[in-house]
Amino acid sequence: MFPDPAGPYLDRAGALDAADPLADLRQRFLLADDVVYLDGNSLGALPAAVPPALEDAVRRQWGTDLIRSWNTNAWWQAPLRVGDAIGALIGAGPGQTVAGDSTSVQIYNALTAAARLRPGRPLLAVDPGHFPTDRYIAAGVARVLGLEVRDVAPADLPEFLAAEGERVAAAAYAPVDYRTGELFDMTALTEAIHAAGALALWDLCHAAGALPVELDALGADFAVGCGYKYLSGGPGAPAFLYVARRHQAAFDPALTGWNGHARPFDPTQEYEPADGIGRGRIGTPPMLSLLALEAALTAFADVDLAAVRAKSLSVTGFFLDCAQALLPEFEAVTPRAPERRGSQVSLRHPDAYALVQALAARGVIGDMRAPDLLRFGVNALYVSHRDVLRAVTTLRDVVAEGAHRPYLTQQRSAVI
Amino acid sequence: MFPDPAGPYLDRAGALDAADPLADLRQRFLLADDVVYLDGNSLGALPAAVPPALEDAVRRQWGTDLIRSWNTNAWWQAPLRVGDAIGALIGAGPGQTVAGDSTSVQIYNALTAAARLRPGRPLLAVDPGHFPTDRYIAAGVARVLGLEVRDVAPADLPEFLAAEGERVAAAAYAPVDYRTGELFDMTALTEAIHAAGALALWDLCHAAGALPVELDALGADFAVGCGYKYLSGGPGAPAFLYVARRHQAAFDPALTGWNGHARPFDPTQEYEPADGIGRGRIGTPPMLSLLALEAALTAFADVDLAAVRAKSLSVTGFFLDCAQALLPEFEAVTPRAPERRGSQVSLRHPDAYALVQALAARGVIGDMRAPDLLRFGVNALYVSHRDVLRAVTTLRDVVAEGAHRPYLTQQRSAVI
Repeated sequence: MFPDPAGPYLDRAGALDAADPLADLRQRFLLADDVVYLDGNSLGALPAAVPPALEDAVRRQWGTDLIRSWNTNAWWQAPLRVGDAIGALIGAGPGQTVAGDSTSVQIYNALTAAARLRPGRPLLAVDPGHFPTDRYIAAGVARVLGLEVRDVAPADLPEFLAAEGERVAAAAYAPVDYRTGELFDMTALTEAIHAAGALALWDLCHAAGALPVELDALGADFAVGCGYKYLSGGPGAPAFLYVARRHQAAFDPALTGWNGHARPFDPTQEYEPADGIGRGRIGTPPMLSLLALEAALTAFADVDLAAVRAKSLSVTGFFLDCAQALLPEFEAVTPRAPERRGSQVSLRHPDAYALVQALAARGVIGDMRAPDLLRFGVNALYVSHRDVLRAVTTLRDVVAEGAHRPYLTQQRSAVI
Repeated sequence: MFPDPAGPYLDRAGALDAADPLADLRQRFLLADDVVYLDGNSLGALPAAVPPALEDAVRRQWGTDLIRSWNTNAWWQAPLRVGDAIGALIGAGPGQTVAGDSTSVQIYNALTAAARLRPGRPLLAVDPGHFPTDRYIAAGVARVLGLEVRDVAPADLPEFLAAEGERVAAAAYAPVDYRTGELFDMTALTEAIHAAGALALWDLCHAAGALPVELDALGADFAVGCGYKYLSGGPGAPAFLYVARRHQAAFDPALTGWNGHARPFDPTQEYEPADGIGRGRIGTPPMLSLLALEAALTAFADVDLAAVRAKSLSVTGFFLDCAQALLPEFEAVTPRAPERRGSQVSLRHPDAYALVQALAARGVIGDMRAPDLLRFGVNALYVSHRDVLRAVTTLRDVVAEGAHRPYLTQQRSAVI
């Protein structure tokens, strides 16, 4: 008998999990024991607080209290209330974050407002590796405002800004590359953007709830993010918008819906924006999804994001160790250095699509990004070291057995 | 003893309800027997199909199937599927309606696209009595595109278009005045708009599900509406966008989110819109709210909207009769002529706010619009003739007893 090369890793996983101060948090999620869920960076698992909260929202608040719930159940305040709850996870003091709409819509509003705060500057700088919607929306903003989008990789941004920064109105970047999991230096990039006199818009989709973000301390100008990844707010959960307090009085977005009006129930013929972050509201928010998100955020109650970050790095680092030892056919594209790593591990393999399908058939759920990236998100609130070891050994077995071959000829359909 | 002047109306209400072919539809809603709910034009009552559908969406689809639900539970197709279900209620053939976002966002996208289809025309015509968000968003669109908004009442629109129509890109109107309940002539207005070479955007918030709308037959260009009024999709339910098939290939909205891309999972650096109405999608939709709306729409299964309209006119006409006889202190502002009446009754009284509060305390729920309109919406799927008689007699009693006086000194807070 040959010893299983995974053996030592199993022992190590057991020891690491036994010492994990956050291990009990998994009980805050309704996740089957036999599932290894590594797609929380696309759709977070279901927090246990959500079903009863939604049942109450539907049967009592909507069904019985009816229209009065806007007052009696404080529906009207929900976007600001949920915004502040998210703000607490991204280093934003109260009154600077509002929940609602989709990330795409929030980017549109933030970028139009940013450009209007820097009139006469014709450029928007955007990461060419940005999640596509960020790029598409930036192009749309540039088109209506007569601006030009420049593709500048994060590594090149300081040099670009030193040369052309005076012409840049805003720079829209994400701290985490959604494909590779690379973490960029938010502090250095924000400083470079500000040194050029431009404004920084951060897309926190792959950061909020996954690692500490300190928007106020950073001096960030604007930020957006979705509610359904590491925040576990449910499919398509409302997004959020952060507007630093110093910009709020001049915040002048393109989408001026009635919820953002100063006196929405005694409206004027012309739009008058509400004071503060309230002017970031647009139309009536999807309340059931918003209340599900609010309940989901209670999974973070009394959770220290520094501890989340420490565990995340431990789990993703362990994942990389296991992959290096047990998956020689795969190239790890996620940086090894902790300060350059978000909360995911991406592995390169030409059969990525088929492998992810075969993994899912064995209860290990990740996802892929075309053409060749297997992507595994780690939500430290419910993913353990044993989970990622099981992902690695299952992947090893799938490859050894060729269990992914039946999927090779399938059309690559949606894998979100 | 004097006979109760309401007596004959009670007999008539009983007879009308006994002959009502839609009476059984109330069983499709979870609405307490002792509540008269006349605010379905702000938030529809809870359809019985919603709680189990949402329970399944949360626990099985999200909790168990997790990310796979985008494929296995067809979440990805939901905006188009729900769009078609709404389309069937507004006279839109399949493939022309998409659900998602808020009415405000949809108006923004529709108006920017409409203006781009009519380049060189500098004006947008908007109803000065339009729901405020329509006006605010139109102003925002005009601002980014360098256009000018003209306030033109529906009655004046044909004359205005005859004079200045060549300069009008699009006209944004609602068939029903949200305050008075007046119904405008969609056919005549659409014809006048088209005769000027402009495009028609209809806001169906107060029409969809309340009365037959025939968008295709009208030759409407664009339409939007919300999901939470007569469609009863739940608080803040996603809105919808209709783009007539003939405009879809050239439909070029401002908000180009990744869900509207031709190949969203194999994206290009530059935005490539999907074929058909799919390009009206923006970001990831709030799926729980969207699935609640989808379930809610089953309340319309096998319901003939002509029958809904007939009952609605019977109920609102009866309401006006009762009000004329029993509420001499109130001025009915909703037109008497059936062809000019939507599905609500609005009464004018200087103490509107206090009266609505006193009514609600007695189980009759309506709403008000500042400064002096009491507004009662009639959803013919669950409102009976006896319901509106009870509203009228309760209002009469409140006035006679001065039961609204305690509310007179309250600040007029949100009454949605």
